[in-house]
Amino acid sequence: MVLDVRVVLVEPLYQGNVGSVARVMKNFGFSDLVLVNPCKLEGEARAMSSHARNVLESARITGSLAGAIEGADLVIGATGITGLRQDEHLRLPVYGPREIKDKLKGMSGTVALLFGREDHGLTNDELKTCDMILSIPASAEYPILNLSHAIAIVLYELSDARAGGNPLAEQFDLKLLHEHIAEVLEDIGYPPHKKDKTLLMFKRILGRAQLIPREVQTLRGVLRRIQRNFGKRYK
Amino acid sequence: MVLDVRVVLVEPLYQGNVGSVARVMKNFGFSDLVLVNPCKLEGEARAMSSHARNVLESARITGSLAGAIEGADLVIGATGITGLRQDEHLRLPVYGPREIKDKLKGMSGTVALLFGREDHGLTNDELKTCDMILSIPASAEYPILNLSHAIAIVLYELSDARAGGNPLAEQFDLKLLHEHIAEVLEDIGYPPHKKDKTLLMFKRILGRAQLIPREVQTLRGVLRRIQRNFGKRYK
Repeated sequence: MVLDVRVVLVEPLYQGNVGSVARVMKNFGFSDLVLVNPCKLEGEARAMSSHARNVLESARITGSLAGAIEGADLVIGATGITGLRQDEHLRLPVYGPREIKDKLKGMSGTVALLFGREDHGLTNDELKTCDMILSIPASAEYPILNLSHAIAIVLYELSDARAGGNPLAEQFDLKLLHEHIAEVLEDIGYPPHKKDKTLLMFKRILGRAQLIPREVQTLRGVLRRIQRNFGKRYK
Repeated sequence: MVLDVRVVLVEPLYQGNVGSVARVMKNFGFSDLVLVNPCKLEGEARAMSSHARNVLESARITGSLAGAIEGADLVIGATGITGLRQDEHLRLPVYGPREIKDKLKGMSGTVALLFGREDHGLTNDELKTCDMILSIPASAEYPILNLSHAIAIVLYELSDARAGGNPLAEQFDLKLLHEHIAEVLEDIGYPPHKKDKTLLMFKRILGRAQLIPREVQTLRGVLRRIQRNFGKRYK
């Protein structure tokens, strides 16, 4: 088993960038490219893909982010703007490419890397679907990298971390876990205005921890017991 | 004293690449760009440099490699084709970007990074002027990176920019969190023979997630609420 890396470009605006991304994917031995509502892909995209035209041409095109991340066990979103709103869980904490690599080392499963539009990146809603947030540490004066440069750096790091042994928990089981946590927050009368933020925090913490299947089951066992406990004492 | 990094492009063929290189230099806080007999630099170069037009416009243009590396304390040449002629010292030994970084750590002075033409790289004579040879480990199937991608990766390694650093939670607060979890397991009558294992699992999961201080506080808030809930219903 190995770590499969899927590159997802969300609404890329410039075909040259898409071609460049295909090229650098092939340079590092990756080929699973998904494009969500991309710009037109014509001669310039092919030219920039150079000898990776096969990666460009076999890219899967989807109309929604949900379709693009289907089947991925871990979703990592890239952002160039970090720490702007320190009060939110949305963009925090943020990991650099090397830290992401260290976290994924020895894992197996499918990791989807999400990169947003060249001008506005990923929307807040798109970032909310992510288990981890990635940002490339750069100069404060001009921190926004070209899209394909950012991907080149991330794939350079990840090409190192590929042969994995620990299977990641399945996305489906993680979803049940998240729903279960939401249920418990409901049970304990958690303040509604804080609920979404706290759920997002749980998603992020558990995403960063890269749970294995047995851990998901044990966590759900603890939650069931907490709930049973409420019930028992109610009666 | 710090390490000054100079990027030298030897006879670049495509102005878009030169602009892209200027951009990624600024992204990582570098600005010393030297061009040896470059192609024409016009609108496309400026467009690709984006907000790094100042780096592009202040690039020094020379007619010879000797002029470009003048004043440099160490000259490192990049090559995409390694090991083709294992009998020669010319391209051997070769270092990856991370190894170069490790070797330069703690050094001060000026390092010139030489990158050759997009089609034929550096000539043998040019490689002979280099103190070290750099190559980016890539897929054997297609090892030749786009010029600006290669430079992005090398500068990423060489930059010590530390944007997006997350302060870790203090060990003391983590200990309180673990004790709090143990307390809740006690409250819910968790089976004693499973308790140690489950506590260890929590420790591992939270350890892997590298919590930030605010997350520890939010988690403890959830636990307090769970406990209050037991209490309320007890009475």
